[in-house]
Amino acid sequence: MLNSIPARIRCPGPPKLYLDIRITMDQTKFKEFEPIFYPKSIAVVGVSMGNLKPGNGYLRSLLEGGFMGKLYAVGSASGEIWGIPVFESLASIPEQVDYVIVSTPKHRILDLLDECRTNGVKVLQIFSAGFSEAGEEDGAKLESAIVQKARKSGIRIIGPNCIGVGSPARRMSLMWRPLPHAHEEGKVAFLSQSGGNAGFFTELGLVRGIRFSKVVSFGNGSDLDSVDFLEYFGADPKTEIIGAYLEGMKNGREFLRLARDISLFKPIVVCKGGLTDAGARTVSSHTASLGGSAAIWRAALKQTGVIKVDTIEELADTILALHHLPRFEGKRVAVVGGLLGAGGGACVASSDACAREGLEVPLLTDRTIARLKGILPAAGSIFQNPVDVGAVAAASLDIFAQALALVFDDPNIDIVVVHLQASFVAPSIGKEQFDRLTGILIKLRQNQTKPLIVLSQSPSAEIVEKAFEEICSNARIPAYPSFDRMAKAIANVTWYWNFRSELESEMS
Amino acid sequence: MLNSIPARIRCPGPPKLYLDIRITMDQTKFKEFEPIFYPKSIAVVGVSMGNLKPGNGYLRSLLEGGFMGKLYAVGSASGEIWGIPVFESLASIPEQVDYVIVSTPKHRILDLLDECRTNGVKVLQIFSAGFSEAGEEDGAKLESAIVQKARKSGIRIIGPNCIGVGSPARRMSLMWRPLPHAHEEGKVAFLSQSGGNAGFFTELGLVRGIRFSKVVSFGNGSDLDSVDFLEYFGADPKTEIIGAYLEGMKNGREFLRLARDISLFKPIVVCKGGLTDAGARTVSSHTASLGGSAAIWRAALKQTGVIKVDTIEELADTILALHHLPRFEGKRVAVVGGLLGAGGGACVASSDACAREGLEVPLLTDRTIARLKGILPAAGSIFQNPVDVGAVAAASLDIFAQALALVFDDPNIDIVVVHLQASFVAPSIGKEQFDRLTGILIKLRQNQTKPLIVLSQSPSAEIVEKAFEEICSNARIPAYPSFDRMAKAIANVTWYWNFRSELESEMS
Repeated sequence: MLNSIPARIRCPGPPKLYLDIRITMDQTKFKEFEPIFYPKSIAVVGVSMGNLKPGNGYLRSLLEGGFMGKLYAVGSASGEIWGIPVFESLASIPEQVDYVIVSTPKHRILDLLDECRTNGVKVLQIFSAGFSEAGEEDGAKLESAIVQKARKSGIRIIGPNCIGVGSPARRMSLMWRPLPHAHEEGKVAFLSQSGGNAGFFTELGLVRGIRFSKVVSFGNGSDLDSVDFLEYFGADPKTEIIGAYLEGMKNGREFLRLARDISLFKPIVVCKGGLTDAGARTVSSHTASLGGSAAIWRAALKQTGVIKVDTIEELADTILALHHLPRFEGKRVAVVGGLLGAGGGACVASSDACAREGLEVPLLTDRTIARLKGILPAAGSIFQNPVDVGAVAAASLDIFAQALALVFDDPNIDIVVVHLQASFVAPSIGKEQFDRLTGILIKLRQNQTKPLIVLSQSPSAEIVEKAFEEICSNARIPAYPSFDRMAKAIANVTWYWNFRSELESEMS
Repeated sequence: MLNSIPARIRCPGPPKLYLDIRITMDQTKFKEFEPIFYPKSIAVVGVSMGNLKPGNGYLRSLLEGGFMGKLYAVGSASGEIWGIPVFESLASIPEQVDYVIVSTPKHRILDLLDECRTNGVKVLQIFSAGFSEAGEEDGAKLESAIVQKARKSGIRIIGPNCIGVGSPARRMSLMWRPLPHAHEEGKVAFLSQSGGNAGFFTELGLVRGIRFSKVVSFGNGSDLDSVDFLEYFGADPKTEIIGAYLEGMKNGREFLRLARDISLFKPIVVCKGGLTDAGARTVSSHTASLGGSAAIWRAALKQTGVIKVDTIEELADTILALHHLPRFEGKRVAVVGGLLGAGGGACVASSDACAREGLEVPLLTDRTIARLKGILPAAGSIFQNPVDVGAVAAASLDIFAQALALVFDDPNIDIVVVHLQASFVAPSIGKEQFDRLTGILIKLRQNQTKPLIVLSQSPSAEIVEKAFEEICSNARIPAYPSFDRMAKAIANVTWYWNFRSELESEMS
């Protein structure tokens, strides 16, 4: 349970200032998470000489990632694997081990718990499956027996049927293969009932520029589950944004109560799987939990301030905007595109996409339109909003920069979206000019208080497009691959900040 | 107008046979399209020594693409450009020219028409903008004067404010840069009011494996417009599928009547921009047409059998399934995933996505489930549907192939979706095994009558992922990047084939 949830108190008058009051949790419980996310040593139980064994995958990823602690391997094979000596049992490891990953067949785990207790192991992560999620009584009974035995020994269980933990601070990789930037510490914590989605979202996030404080896939959640990790991430000072993939849960009411309290301080974005009948039926086989009705979930989450998304892609899109941009509440979007004169259709698409998500694409003021007409030719340009800068702006990037500055200054506008297809523009104007173009965007992001977002459609996902997205991301400019996804992300984020403002004004 | 639309007559009894009756159009009018899509010579008017001039872009793309006809350049610069002699006027070209592309300022075009008439030019494509779409009376008057003058001389106009024509049969490229596969003749015709969307869709389509018969961007459609091109593509024997990006039109009623007749023979997929207020306002500045109400458009298109999509991405997704797969009507989807044990969350996501689009993910028969349980381990697998084959199938691809065959054979199933993330699976199992895996899919596609679709999520769009998608596409297996997009595409296509079956049974 959260120990105390003091209100964040707003000081009167602009600029808005807040007293820095954080949420905390019971310190004994908080400390229990230390060996989970900051273990000093890890033993992988279930290593063999075959390359496809999950145990080997864990061991290799910890080795290659450069895990900042001691590593032990336990397996039937004798000798060494990748320079690590293989012990024949956990009991034969001479030192105390914080964290054990087990991927052996399930029936060996009760015995392993005896060895864990003797050794002083604090956390047992069970990759092995075939428990309550398999739908047969034996598995459910074994799962429950494991939890009871672990609790008696003060050992916390993650899983079974899970991938486990990623923790950049310890260079502890979630994935079985090295991913660029996986070990850069960030501010997003992610909790997932599904291991596959934990991996998929982590990879998607890293590629897009999201950096993580902690990631956990907890599978069946037999001991530690979504409520525990949400509570910890709420209190974790390294975590500023919380993402979650959930299927169902045993104590939804407690989750919702916690989410309501935490979302006043940290945005929470939840992708809830199994909100359709077909999905709910699958949920029960996957993580042995009940999906619950779509309508109830939607309504309940909305009241807590949790941002609800439908897909993992929308989860990444939404967290990207929260991650890169400071708080923004206004919903009036300007779209600027048409470099090299290919912008009219995109202007229409962006207007439609924003309108579908409840965003506004208002007319610019007469003053801005008049000033734009002073620098852009009438032929091939569109002035109202979206603004199609036409072919001329590519020939003279100064004009492009001026046009963008005018749109930023327009009092009708809260958010500026720049649309350009790098794989088309970059080769057309050449590297030097394209570098100038990205320089203009980076400078705007640094100097403007209104959010800047880039829409970079990428039909062939070419290298130049990826490089451009990375430049944007490094400058903390969120880049989206389609207008629909961009509009959804903006709508989600403005909804959250508006919700929070309302709550804050009630409390101040 | 279509000359005759004879009904396709179904012969009684299985297998279904159809008499091959095609739609035709007035042959004089049909012949007018020959110099548009099969010109023997092209002159580009508006070439200069600056690299960014649109005229130069056209000339270079025709040259680099290897246009199968004579090429002429007209411009102020004297001498040669890329080995092509530059004429100072169209009048000074000694031979007759079929097709002229002009990108000079608009006020020069009336004079150019005199030269066109003298030369015997048949088609004038006007890239230049600043006409009716600019919202000022002068531009609209000039546009109308150009059309009147052209008609008197028997010259057809494409544009103004357009990119023009792509025609693989003549190696006539739409884009200003070379695209892989652009010159392979295919069966999809695409008509677009927006030049940017014509380029974006063409590129997106080519990358995904769609091949084109013809592409046209007609901008303001001052002379030839959407109705003309739809009619021609309806009658064109090279075209089997028609895609369109439309904003608004002057004669919507005629378009709908034509679409209703043609869609009985060829699927038509329409992305209609400007269906929101914000979008409609942008449409009027872009192509000088009225967007029309969303509700009326939706209802009207539905009655014609036209597949209506919201975005260019959905347009490509839908046409991809029509392009790669034979006719299919059933909506009962099986999803098979989980290679290497990362499939549970994806199973839930796929069920949810299908249900949201009105597709079914039914339980497999008891017989299939029993047989799957005979070859797959209980731990880590899901048997009902979606099927999570678990870690074992990656270790033994024979088991994977057997499981897939069982699912294909299940009488409850109409469509089989295989989910795998190539960038994760390929490096894990090695090249040789991955080649075997793709071999299994290719063989299934060849031997099974039920449609096979691949879901290949690609967080980082890695090279291996792109290569895998290309392998699928070459085998005519549509590959999608997300469950939502896949489900929408399947729903769109099954809707169409069901609509068509109903009409056919009424007529037979």
